[in-house]
Amino acid sequence: MPTSISAWVDEIRSGNLRALSRAITAVENRTPESLPLLQSLFAYSGRARIVGITGSPGAGKSTLVDALAAQFRARHQTAGIIAVDPTSPFTGGAILGDRIRMASHSLDEGIFIRSMATRGALGGLSSTAADVATVLDASGRDLVLIETVGAGQDEVDIVRLADLTLVVLVPGMGDDVQSIKAGILEIADIFVINKSDREGAARVERELRALQSLSTRADGWVPPIVHTVATIGTGIAALLAAIDEYESFLAAHSLGLQRRIANWRIRLQQMLRDELLRRIEAQSLSEEAMTQYAAQVAAHQRDPYSLIAELAAQSPTSLANPPSGEQAKDLPKDGTPC
Amino acid sequence: MPTSISAWVDEIRSGNLRALSRAITAVENRTPESLPLLQSLFAYSGRARIVGITGSPGAGKSTLVDALAAQFRARHQTAGIIAVDPTSPFTGGAILGDRIRMASHSLDEGIFIRSMATRGALGGLSSTAADVATVLDASGRDLVLIETVGAGQDEVDIVRLADLTLVVLVPGMGDDVQSIKAGILEIADIFVINKSDREGAARVERELRALQSLSTRADGWVPPIVHTVATIGTGIAALLAAIDEYESFLAAHSLGLQRRIANWRIRLQQMLRDELLRRIEAQSLSEEAMTQYAAQVAAHQRDPYSLIAELAAQSPTSLANPPSGEQAKDLPKDGTPC
Repeated sequence: MPTSISAWVDEIRSGNLRALSRAITAVENRTPESLPLLQSLFAYSGRARIVGITGSPGAGKSTLVDALAAQFRARHQTAGIIAVDPTSPFTGGAILGDRIRMASHSLDEGIFIRSMATRGALGGLSSTAADVATVLDASGRDLVLIETVGAGQDEVDIVRLADLTLVVLVPGMGDDVQSIKAGILEIADIFVINKSDREGAARVERELRALQSLSTRADGWVPPIVHTVATIGTGIAALLAAIDEYESFLAAHSLGLQRRIANWRIRLQQMLRDELLRRIEAQSLSEEAMTQYAAQVAAHQRDPYSLIAELAAQSPTSLANPPSGEQAKDLPKDGTPC
Repeated sequence: MPTSISAWVDEIRSGNLRALSRAITAVENRTPESLPLLQSLFAYSGRARIVGITGSPGAGKSTLVDALAAQFRARHQTAGIIAVDPTSPFTGGAILGDRIRMASHSLDEGIFIRSMATRGALGGLSSTAADVATVLDASGRDLVLIETVGAGQDEVDIVRLADLTLVVLVPGMGDDVQSIKAGILEIADIFVINKSDREGAARVERELRALQSLSTRADGWVPPIVHTVATIGTGIAALLAAIDEYESFLAAHSLGLQRRIANWRIRLQQMLRDELLRRIEAQSLSEEAMTQYAAQVAAHQRDPYSLIAELAAQSPTSLANPPSGEQAKDLPKDGTPC
């Protein structure tokens, strides 16, 4: 490991917030040093409790996350918050909200907030969020909260990779339990009914219980339903107790490692796919070739479906060789036709 | 082309709605017949006007799209609507909304609505939406409207591949023009300020004009700003006139083909990436191998970053050999080394 990476890791682990912040930026931007950095930091990860939080837009997740982090602080534990909001092209909301939240916690170095508002062209947001969680974990944070707006599959993928997943519902927001896809209900280890002082909270709970009675989880855990009013702190202690209870359950049945293995299987597959995609992108067709093909298709001289089948059939072969242009020279020496 | 595909294409082109619906389902599910079907249909595509519509959630896009389609019907033209809403895991809103919309148009075979609420694991939604547009185009629809909730980059990618892109804004929804990312403003050929009877419509227009004064488009077009109240039909005729004007502009400057070529360049790249990804997925690691690696990583015996680098380095080579093993037989006959 190069000296600078080693020094950087030491700074991160000693609580230097600038070093931590710089590391997260490096990971987000996939700078060349991010790989050795993550390789080094990984050895120190695995200690934090990673909690994923998702729920419909407007469910008050940010407030809940902040309240949860504050409750952890009261226990003298540190927290890192990753707020994933890919809705930014329109609202820019994540960034604004992040600044406001940063301000409210800014005097407390024990809570570190980072928002990820951009989605990479390659859909690598899920991997990136998980890598950022690894950095926060390795930096010594006791709790890492990953919060998503929960609008799409990507966001669901992100939170399901946590050690524990909270699904936040609210009464009367048009998201009746019936209209919530089964996939969301399945990933919940704990349900939170936030804004539970509103009318309809009891009905949401009743519907959840009815759904729960229809099927049981393979591990036997029955996700508890916790009522909160995050804005005034109601129910946060009960939520923390439910989190502790779930962790005890996992420990008692030796399920913690099993869950991490299952999560790593999914994450490794994502990482492999992302990495292969990056390699594909790095040696995609030349601009001119693509423009020529596009002109042929636009003029209807060629159908795009047959064209892509042809190009894809060629491409894997060329992937076996580096993009540097050595391919043509190397192949004959190789002796293998393809 | 197999007889059944040929008969299917004939049915689609003669206006058989069941055949059309079945074709779209085949394309969405990528059934084996979808490829020959698309190859055949492509020859009949290129006649429809493809209009993409995006905007912040709650901007009233669905109502606007319906009003626009109805206006086209008044001209005795037919329309197809593709409503892309990947937010379904939570709200289920797209499907419900679709049923309501279908009901309102159900007596009119001249308007065909299809919602796409699911996002494929490989992020192929953009390609799929474009393929569905090709099917509707080939079926003889005069207008194909592609509407997205506009929450993320994916949705922006979808509408930018249209012949013409509408960006819908509303006054006072917290999406001040300043907070809208430049990327969205750049893709607009026409701006629509919907719900323009609300306070603040004039301010939105003023801000848009101020932004427009800062830069000019390469093609010289200045996107007009149309005020609408879609619920009562106000401004829809003016919007249609603006659409016609833009098309005349493209024709007068021979820019239509240029735009289609530029769009096809992006779309071909997406298609190639999606196809390569499918090939990667088809021969990804075995379940057991992945579980073993996951167990090693979960136990911290191995860091995932080095592991993925190793696996990715192996994978391209193995990709050179097709899963079916037929390539190896065919290539030598060809005589070409690669």
